[in-house]
Amino acid sequence: MFELSDRAARYRDDLLTFMDEHVYPAERVYHEQMAAAGDPHFHPPVLEELKAAARERGLWNLFHPHPQWGPGLTNSEYAPLAEIMGRSAELAPEATNCNAPDTGNMEVLTLFGSEEQQREWLQPLLEGTIRSAFAMTEPAVASSDATNIELRMERDGDHYVLNGRKWWTSNALHANCRVLIVMGKTDPDAPVHRQQSMLVVPMDTPGITVVRNLPVFGYQDREGHAEVVFEDVRVPSSAVLAGEGAGFLIAQSRLGPGRIHHCMRAIGIAERALDLMIDRAQARTTFGAPLADRANIQDWIAESRIEIDMARLLTLKAAHLMDTVGNKAARTEIAAIKVAAPQVALKVVDRAIQVHGGGGVSDDFPLASMYAHLRTLRLADGPDEVHKRTIAQLELRRRDPSWGRKG
Amino acid sequence: MFELSDRAARYRDDLLTFMDEHVYPAERVYHEQMAAAGDPHFHPPVLEELKAAARERGLWNLFHPHPQWGPGLTNSEYAPLAEIMGRSAELAPEATNCNAPDTGNMEVLTLFGSEEQQREWLQPLLEGTIRSAFAMTEPAVASSDATNIELRMERDGDHYVLNGRKWWTSNALHANCRVLIVMGKTDPDAPVHRQQSMLVVPMDTPGITVVRNLPVFGYQDREGHAEVVFEDVRVPSSAVLAGEGAGFLIAQSRLGPGRIHHCMRAIGIAERALDLMIDRAQARTTFGAPLADRANIQDWIAESRIEIDMARLLTLKAAHLMDTVGNKAARTEIAAIKVAAPQVALKVVDRAIQVHGGGGVSDDFPLASMYAHLRTLRLADGPDEVHKRTIAQLELRRRDPSWGRKG
Amino acid sequence: MFELSDRAARYRDDLLTFMDEHVYPAERVYHEQMAAAGDPHFHPPVLEELKAAARERGLWNLFHPHPQWGPGLTNSEYAPLAEIMGRSAELAPEATNCNAPDTGNMEVLTLFGSEEQQREWLQPLLEGTIRSAFAMTEPAVASSDATNIELRMERDGDHYVLNGRKWWTSNALHANCRVLIVMGKTDPDAPVHRQQSMLVVPMDTPGITVVRNLPVFGYQDREGHAEVVFEDVRVPSSAVLAGEGAGFLIAQSRLGPGRIHHCMRAIGIAERALDLMIDRAQARTTFGAPLADRANIQDWIAESRIEIDMARLLTLKAAHLMDTVGNKAARTEIAAIKVAAPQVALKVVDRAIQVHGGGGVSDDFPLASMYAHLRTLRLADGPDEVHKRTIAQLELRRRDPSWGRKG
Amino acid sequence: MFELSDRAARYRDDLLTFMDEHVYPAERVYHEQMAAAGDPHFHPPVLEELKAAARERGLWNLFHPHPQWGPGLTNSEYAPLAEIMGRSAELAPEATNCNAPDTGNMEVLTLFGSEEQQREWLQPLLEGTIRSAFAMTEPAVASSDATNIELRMERDGDHYVLNGRKWWTSNALHANCRVLIVMGKTDPDAPVHRQQSMLVVPMDTPGITVVRNLPVFGYQDREGHAEVVFEDVRVPSSAVLAGEGAGFLIAQSRLGPGRIHHCMRAIGIAERALDLMIDRAQARTTFGAPLADRANIQDWIAESRIEIDMARLLTLKAAHLMDTVGNKAARTEIAAIKVAAPQVALKVVDRAIQVHGGGGVSDDFPLASMYAHLRTLRLADGPDEVHKRTIAQLELRRRDPSWGRKG
Repeated sequence: MFELSDRAARYRDDLLTFMDEHVYPAERVYHEQMAAAGDPHFHPPVLEELKAAARERGLWNLFHPHPQWGPGLTNSEYAPLAEIMGRSAELAPEATNCNAPDTGNMEVLTLFGSEEQQREWLQPLLEGTIRSAFAMTEPAVASSDATNIELRMERDGDHYVLNGRKWWTSNALHANCRVLIVMGKTDPDAPVHRQQSMLVVPMDTPGITVVRNLPVFGYQDREGHAEVVFEDVRVPSSAVLAGEGAGFLIAQSRLGPGRIHHCMRAIGIAERALDLMIDRAQARTTFGAPLADRANIQDWIAESRIEIDMARLLTLKAAHLMDTVGNKAARTEIAAIKVAAPQVALKVVDRAIQVHGGGGVSDDFPLASMYAHLRTLRLADGPDEVHKRTIAQLELRRRDPSWGRKG
Repeated sequence: MFELSDRAARYRDDLLTFMDEHVYPAERVYHEQMAAAGDPHFHPPVLEELKAAARERGLWNLFHPHPQWGPGLTNSEYAPLAEIMGRSAELAPEATNCNAPDTGNMEVLTLFGSEEQQREWLQPLLEGTIRSAFAMTEPAVASSDATNIELRMERDGDHYVLNGRKWWTSNALHANCRVLIVMGKTDPDAPVHRQQSMLVVPMDTPGITVVRNLPVFGYQDREGHAEVVFEDVRVPSSAVLAGEGAGFLIAQSRLGPGRIHHCMRAIGIAERALDLMIDRAQARTTFGAPLADRANIQDWIAESRIEIDMARLLTLKAAHLMDTVGNKAARTEIAAIKVAAPQVALKVVDRAIQVHGGGGVSDDFPLASMYAHLRTLRLADGPDEVHKRTIAQLELRRRDPSWGRKG
Repeated sequence: MFELSDRAARYRDDLLTFMDEHVYPAERVYHEQMAAAGDPHFHPPVLEELKAAARERGLWNLFHPHPQWGPGLTNSEYAPLAEIMGRSAELAPEATNCNAPDTGNMEVLTLFGSEEQQREWLQPLLEGTIRSAFAMTEPAVASSDATNIELRMERDGDHYVLNGRKWWTSNALHANCRVLIVMGKTDPDAPVHRQQSMLVVPMDTPGITVVRNLPVFGYQDREGHAEVVFEDVRVPSSAVLAGEGAGFLIAQSRLGPGRIHHCMRAIGIAERALDLMIDRAQARTTFGAPLADRANIQDWIAESRIEIDMARLLTLKAAHLMDTVGNKAARTEIAAIKVAAPQVALKVVDRAIQVHGGGGVSDDFPLASMYAHLRTLRLADGPDEVHKRTIAQLELRRRDPSWGRKG
Repeated sequence: MFELSDRAARYRDDLLTFMDEHVYPAERVYHEQMAAAGDPHFHPPVLEELKAAARERGLWNLFHPHPQWGPGLTNSEYAPLAEIMGRSAELAPEATNCNAPDTGNMEVLTLFGSEEQQREWLQPLLEGTIRSAFAMTEPAVASSDATNIELRMERDGDHYVLNGRKWWTSNALHANCRVLIVMGKTDPDAPVHRQQSMLVVPMDTPGITVVRNLPVFGYQDREGHAEVVFEDVRVPSSAVLAGEGAGFLIAQSRLGPGRIHHCMRAIGIAERALDLMIDRAQARTTFGAPLADRANIQDWIAESRIEIDMARLLTLKAAHLMDTVGNKAARTEIAAIKVAAPQVALKVVDRAIQVHGGGGVSDDFPLASMYAHLRTLRLADGPDEVHKRTIAQLELRRRDPSWGRKG
């Protein structure tokens, strides 16, 4: 795992060059275009330029594990690329068509979509001409327990009628968003993990209302995290993915790779924050010496290096296990990185903020925004506590295989 | 210190009633008025209604230690009131004319202002008809070392001419802000702590430009944290407070009480967050039990209670020492609370966010905003590390009085 | 609470003088006498000399709240004295006849003992001529839940017959130990908190076997923590304290003051460790500068100061509440200090060890021993988790008075 | 790195079997033999039985990287074996002739010893018939800065005369210890890293006095950590290793592999502690439920799993880098594991102690002893702070190659 395959190394080198030549220089342009637009959901031209440049270099759909749709990299091969993209998290993932939740949606459509769905939605998503959202979480119930989901999908002839409310539907306010994958309940009387289904729903279907965007801390994100109301939304029964009752299964299947992507991007963010911390500590002087000469700041730098490296290795191990023995055997690791990577990244960014003083909490540096968005990772896909619970159950059964199954 | 004086207890009771009857119910109105205005610096009518109601009840200028201008409460007496105000930090302090930095400015004008300055600025500030800002921190230098300040104040006949750049000038974007107290350098050749002066400068003086508002995490605060440029700003020499070279001394004098206010408000914020955490933990159910029944959530609640109570006691002790033996003898405590109170409050708020899930990072609850603003307290008035350094010096000298004074 | 009463201040001054003139100089003598004896439970002559000196100065039984038996200090008055004793925890408490568990036993005998019991046991305990132990915890059950206790006390005519096993019976290996107060179950069929009784049992009663001493980390403590087996131990029925079924109640009553004593001694230990840390940091040089000049060591010193001061204030508040509103109203605080004080002290001692290098873990400094014994405080009287649970229940009911009492 | 080589996997399987069949069953016997002997430095027969059994199975000198002396495993191959040995740290390393500091001494004698030295000392060490110690650290100076070393080695004709004092000379009190490798100063006027030499000194050389054993917390370790005085100790000049002035270089060379061994054993200790924690949590019931059902205990289990796995991966990466690019290129990782592994292990053991209650701090479980000895790892070979300093310097130069080298 410490050595990349040749082709992964080539992608990494190309991506690093692309970051240096295109992405980092575009960051300032991006912020200027967004500020000038005065609309947080504006789609800035620089992004399309980046997409064109990435595609030209073959840095496109790198995430896609299926050779017919992308380079077919393994999780272990793609992971280091995701880290690099994380260093400029607002631009690089979308520039390379590797941004969530489109990646997860594309995987789901690849695996479970009908030919028609693939033609209508997967194709333009892979082209990057449209965007998609994933409507899972609901405001009324704790999302850490997926069986809580309440949005109703009732069969009415050859249609489903959807009624309910979702939130944190990320990407729904992206200027190019055209389609939602919606998780809901088709059969409340089925066994608990067979009650849910996923439907592919065009954004312009009557009855769908984006009520508002949810800010993250104070940030209005470009792609948006929408609260969406479904009122008698009618879709043909062909909209169902992989058959009625498959919702829970599909949800599970998309989790693994998404975790790797999120965690590696978080590590990339942490590396960028560490660089900013070091640079600032070298540049600022108080009481006659640069901050970088102070032993407490040096401790922060060293602890950041240690923690980042450990979190990266754990994530790479999870990726390796997924590639070799599968998601089920890697359950502990997939849960563990979800806890570890965001926490490490938050610690590093917080130290970097402290070294930056007032600048650190403003928008002169990306640190406050990094912190806010990393903080959501401790909640998205279930809070830390749910993942620790999973790990603990596995450990308890490691020592006593009958644990939790008695009586 | 555990028992309040009778009059302090009366104020506390009155304030608690005022919070219940006026402030908490006004929170929703406030947010609606702000949202409707579409201007982050809008001055919403509900605030003037609250101010009128507070004044009518005698809950006005409670902070002011001088009996001729306010109730003349000691730091120990006012501290518990500041905590209560902190529970609704966007409304209660301003409603009672006890908001920073106006409080510090009013104290400075009381102690060091000329009769003219008091008539022109102190009087309307005490009336709550105008607001003021304090321009101290500068973007180009580390503010943790106050001698770094660079804004030039050059004498030109009976005027001073100001040139320089400030940021984090809080309140400068308040709709009613009319005056700045500015810290700058009048004599670069004087001894290091006599180079600085403070001037009272009307906001509308030519040459003053508010360049931008600095967001806190993503938040655009109503009162604003301005970056302000001074270009050949001319003010009469009578604008100087307490004479040329007194800037550092005045800065020191305002620190102590301000610390108590900030820290007690932080504790009030933490108490509010703890209440929200408990309420949510009791209301949300996962895997068949309310979160409040889980031992990890119970640990968070208990640890929050313990930490809040300890931070409050330390702050009350600092207030007590300031009242009885003075700021100098209380240096360790005044530095200690600046480190302890924000950190405790941040921990509590972070746990509350975690219990709230996605709601915790949005604007459906005040938690994300609390976190963002508490985070700035670890930087304002110098970062934690500067205060720890102060404490360590005092401890090192406690064991070896000659420490740091040798050779 | 920040000012001591006059008489408490007098005791404090006298005690400080006694520490300087007698206790600290005796520490080396003590260790030499113990080493020479080759018996960890040896009673060294220097201790008797210290006891004589303390008694002569009126520094005797300071803990005793009842004026007829001691100075009658309140918890608030005694607390600062306990802290001072904690600075030399192996000598000062016993030198002043204020060592646990004799203090708790003396209180229990004062409140609940018959005249005969007081004459036979309380009097010599107050004189310091004998020592006593408290047999509560049992190896077979979790002591965090007191209703788990299993030692049987069966009535047989006008006797009780005891059968069972205790451990962590502290003081039982003290050379002068003559009596045990034993908690056991007299009536397994009574309501859950009326099943237990406490008996006064002479150490030389047939059937009592001290099986072994329990080391604390590697330490064999002089007073010992015994595992004691009771086999058909017969004691007259007059041995019962406060009547059959009162065991749980008596146990509760001794908890409060004992907590204050333990926590204040822990704070005294922490203060001593901080002094050692500072002295060492000033004395040791690496890479051309004393450790005390390093910002990370300074951070440790400052954090230690802040944390110690907060833990002390919380403990003093608990003492104050116990004195003024009683143990029941102070439940949160009494639980809180049990969690906070040992943890703070452990943190400080651990930092001091780190600054001392190899010396810190050896017996050249008292730090490793401090750590080991403070670590037991996180378990004695119930682990942290039980106390946090108590606090959480009270907080949950603060917000919802019916919490945990429903259906 | 996630897959072991075939031969490493065979050794692992054999070692696991050996642990199950011989080592774990011997633990009780070992403690009984030690207790019966009444001498902490007794050499118990069970150990020789284990050594014979290990050797018979080919589990002997596994650490030795040179094929002519051992199996010639790489660091990556040996690391997982060291972890397994760490699970029974008092027995398994010595049973397999893989215990420190003999391993380091054997490596040094292999690389730098003369033929005579190899015949006289290396051969019996490899046979396990004698033991050796390493005398480096000194009580009078901070060992974190190796240039502080003061023991004098003065040339007198064809002899060296040694005068000085060492401590933490581990193994010196082992019943079979016959030889010391001593670091001292041969030329105070040489360049700072060429002043030191290492000599091979028989334990029975006149002038060597073992003054005392240093306890670790309260533990008197069997192998001993000696304070040793050298008074006019004369050794022939042929005792020098690799020539005069090579001391610092040799010290450096032994560091790398020793770090891997120590850290992997620490991880093995942590795994054993985690198993104990889980078993106890499943076995103990309070308030009507097993501890293992409590969410806070589950959090501890999960966090322990996550942290152990991260620390292991970092150590394996360091081993891999040492094998592939060498110690110099792995400086960050070698420093990082020295900080990370002991801290993780201490956290896990501390949680396990807490779950065990009073048993956890006694000798009924190995936890308190584990804690005490792991705690020394944060100091041995330099305290954490020195290693963080090293990492920070490398990071600072990563961003600015001229950092610390200017003017």
